[in-house]
Amino acid sequence: MKLLTLRTANGGSNNTVAVRQDGETLTEIDGFADVGALLQDPNWETTAKAANGATHPLDGADLAAVVPSPGKIICVGHNYRNHIKEMGRDVPEYPTLFAKYAESLIGPNDDLALPQESDAVDWEAELAVIIGKQGRRISEADAADHIAGYAVLNDVSMRDYQFRTIQWLQGKTWEKSTPFGPALVTKDEFTAGPLMTSAVDGDVQQSTPTSDLVFTPEFLVSYISTIITLNPGDVIATGTPGGVGHAQDPKRYLQEGQVLLTTIEGLGQLKNRVVKEA
Amino acid sequence: MKLLTLRTANGGSNNTVAVRQDGETLTEIDGFADVGALLQDPNWETTAKAANGATHPLDGADLAAVVPSPGKIICVGHNYRNHIKEMGRDVPEYPTLFAKYAESLIGPNDDLALPQESDAVDWEAELAVIIGKQGRRISEADAADHIAGYAVLNDVSMRDYQFRTIQWLQGKTWEKSTPFGPALVTKDEFTAGPLMTSAVDGDVQQSTPTSDLVFTPEFLVSYISTIITLNPGDVIATGTPGGVGHAQDPKRYLQEGQVLLTTIEGLGQLKNRVVKEA
Repeated sequence: MKLLTLRTANGGSNNTVAVRQDGETLTEIDGFADVGALLQDPNWETTAKAANGATHPLDGADLAAVVPSPGKIICVGHNYRNHIKEMGRDVPEYPTLFAKYAESLIGPNDDLALPQESDAVDWEAELAVIIGKQGRRISEADAADHIAGYAVLNDVSMRDYQFRTIQWLQGKTWEKSTPFGPALVTKDEFTAGPLMTSAVDGDVQQSTPTSDLVFTPEFLVSYISTIITLNPGDVIATGTPGGVGHAQDPKRYLQEGQVLLTTIEGLGQLKNRVVKEA
Repeated sequence: MKLLTLRTANGGSNNTVAVRQDGETLTEIDGFADVGALLQDPNWETTAKAANGATHPLDGADLAAVVPSPGKIICVGHNYRNHIKEMGRDVPEYPTLFAKYAESLIGPNDDLALPQESDAVDWEAELAVIIGKQGRRISEADAADHIAGYAVLNDVSMRDYQFRTIQWLQGKTWEKSTPFGPALVTKDEFTAGPLMTSAVDGDVQQSTPTSDLVFTPEFLVSYISTIITLNPGDVIATGTPGGVGHAQDPKRYLQEGQVLLTTIEGLGQLKNRVVKEA
């Protein structure tokens, strides 16, 4: 099942509504403003399957970030062997974790805000895990039960700010810079493995199977939930493979007017035009 | 004015209610489940002043974290000259920023959860800034207008997890480990400057005036809001001074049964008993 968050003129306070995708048709899941709100319903899967609200064509749909306001976005660094190598590091014993705030998220086809303050805006294609059930100290064996599904995320990073200090947060959470979607694909329809790519104006930059992850989604759910409760709608961005612009020679960053494509086979594509902020 | 979040048997879905403190009396601010919800009201200050709901004695009141679920908690590292020195670093050009998630917050008198997984739980007394008005790219001159007030926070840190990788998040956001409160003291009644202390079983560990900050609250509001919109209820934890246990010789960490006191003159005190998790 594919679940998305659609912007509509009559979608409640946020003007969005959760929808189910069947082929080329989106069906409203009445009573849920977005996929994050839907996941708060313990019976979200049954509710979503049974929904028969108003319909919309997928073609031309105005999509928001699939979960527009996660309670937590937990990002993982150094999690693909080839990216660890290009950054000159060793394969780690523990996952490197950092955060991103919800205000950084944008929809799968939204403009990506290039701020006046940074000249080093880089791409990081990532597999995102979306939590479907609350838990603390979840075992790796039980982790799948807490995963609702998967989506595509690009952890766009302002490298100059990221490396101003030893903590990366300030380069990782710029307003309206992180495309996320297009859909939550439920876990029965996706397993980490398929190819993930990013491309700038059609030039492929990253191309790595999601099976190259050092720490799997299940391991990450277990590890993070040792520290803190994972709640429905929380997002784990599992890290990026080799091919980021900052590691190229010469370094390459996003420029105004470029189009950033981020794709995972089986999950879909993000297509974001880079637009300089006024 | 002092604003607090009180746990009550009839306080709505979270069983809490925002209250105003006048001397030894707490007055309910009807319609607001906590101080974070109150701050969403653009007229929160007028609303709070005019409130005349049910009253409770301050003595024995069961207080929640003053803002129990901030949209963002942005923490600052390396921000007191004497802590920078004890950690062997230079005075920085830019603030070091990292995050903490809301699930780590506890009330001013709650038990502090000592997890089985960490043997290195340390204290970090901090001045917290609470945002009262939304803004992006706020100038330093306008920053005060976006600050609702101040509170005390202890950025309790699991040093073993903090230093497992180069990113601190996983040592900074353990469940129910960050005392925050007791009150939001509005900015007309407090300016950074008074003494901040932490003590373990009565032994003073940290004692530094909050005027020793390298980056002021106003600078931090301006700097962070360049990156991302600050919203009402967002919290900036402005960093800790010298005297943390990890920098002592021998290193000293919190032990089961100890009481951690965190005090800022004019803001109040957090008193948290350290209790090992089952």
